[in-house]
Amino acid sequence: MPHERVDDLQLDGLKIIQDPKGFCFGIDAVLLSHFVKVKRTHQIVEFGTGTGIIPILLAGKTEFKHLYAFEVQEEVADMASRSVKLNHLEDKIEIIRANLKEALQYFDKGTMDTIVSNPPYMSTDGGIKNPSDKKAISRHEVLCTLEDIIVNASSLLKPGGNLYMIHRPNRLADLIYLCKQNKLEPKEIRMIQPYAHKKPNIFLIRCAKGGRSDLKFHDPLIVRTNQGDYTKAIYDIYGMENITVFE
Amino acid sequence: MPHERVDDLQLDGLKIIQDPKGFCFGIDAVLLSHFVKVKRTHQIVEFGTGTGIIPILLAGKTEFKHLYAFEVQEEVADMASRSVKLNHLEDKIEIIRANLKEALQYFDKGTMDTIVSNPPYMSTDGGIKNPSDKKAISRHEVLCTLEDIIVNASSLLKPGGNLYMIHRPNRLADLIYLCKQNKLEPKEIRMIQPYAHKKPNIFLIRCAKGGRSDLKFHDPLIVRTNQGDYTKAIYDIYGMENITVFE
Repeated sequence: MPHERVDDLQLDGLKIIQDPKGFCFGIDAVLLSHFVKVKRTHQIVEFGTGTGIIPILLAGKTEFKHLYAFEVQEEVADMASRSVKLNHLEDKIEIIRANLKEALQYFDKGTMDTIVSNPPYMSTDGGIKNPSDKKAISRHEVLCTLEDIIVNASSLLKPGGNLYMIHRPNRLADLIYLCKQNKLEPKEIRMIQPYAHKKPNIFLIRCAKGGRSDLKFHDPLIVRTNQGDYTKAIYDIYGMENITVFE
Repeated sequence: MPHERVDDLQLDGLKIIQDPKGFCFGIDAVLLSHFVKVKRTHQIVEFGTGTGIIPILLAGKTEFKHLYAFEVQEEVADMASRSVKLNHLEDKIEIIRANLKEALQYFDKGTMDTIVSNPPYMSTDGGIKNPSDKKAISRHEVLCTLEDIIVNASSLLKPGGNLYMIHRPNRLADLIYLCKQNKLEPKEIRMIQPYAHKKPNIFLIRCAKGGRSDLKFHDPLIVRTNQGDYTKAIYDIYGMENITVFE
């Protein structure tokens, strides 16, 4: 398609189709896929896959049974499907072109081990409004809200199953409240800080279906040294010494 | 009384009576009293004042109209009252010997500007159980729970009034959930980390009665440098160069 390009993920020869005029994957997708822990037997659902980057990174780094990735935008879902084929992952990964609010039309309640979501960060209060704009849909809660994600994740998860998300700190209270309302107990959190002494600008969280209340903080993930270089922790997550970080 | 000693707070000549066999104030009380913002017209309530350290520190650093401090333990409340008198603060600070669960027997709903609490950190699940033990009552939720504090704070606060608390990160999800359930919106949070790269071991939070959902993170407060010295931020909070930190 016009505008598209194929980027090499430098991981097991995996590739991703992206549209620089649309929405390219960023550091968030890499951090979230590194944070997720899955097992060989796991059935996974992703809400809002965009280019399909998280399923493809997970397939490169972990083993799982099957991953179903919802993407509501037709063109974007088509691009993700083509990336899955390009990497010969059709047996593992299925892109579902639908709104995640319809998840229960595709799967039974309590059947999934893991849900992953890198949701739109901005609530619609903030006021953008070209609802046909691909970037807007990926970034703002135009077609689904944080509550839609959490309610549907809770429905699909087995007891003890996990929801993994990445989000902005200003939404932490909303996220925790909605999760606990929906029987998803926050169990692990990792704050991501641009520098060691600076406030976090994103965080990773794991919530367990029906878990006991006890939130474990990890050491913060510091992105850059005081000199402005990437930290060893970031190089380790990218798994290589020469990285391109789309921030 | 036997065991007691009088410590100089090195702040405006203020002093505090403490019982080294009971429970002495620590860094938490200093950090919380520094975090609290009050105005000259404010009526303040503290839940669980212990030795009375937070009212006395606030009186040394800020101006407010009146502060009412609940303390359920008779001996401890008596010691706090004597510290108030020792500092000639009887016009400003009143120690109320009662369980904070009875707060509405002392004050009308919606009449307070600010509530402060440095609550017991441990839930009673953890299993201590000498309920007459002063240290246990100060540290464990023996005589009141986190929910008691939040429910009563919400009742006493005016619209827009603030609850300031310090707590352990493992209770953050519970605290946020209970606050939001009781119309107290988390607005500001500051994580306190022993070292720059280590996970937080305490946090400070401000929740506003009836506020709009939008949580602002502060830069983390780092207690020690990598060399193990106190950081400039800690010296600034203690307001002096030679400090005794009871950690």
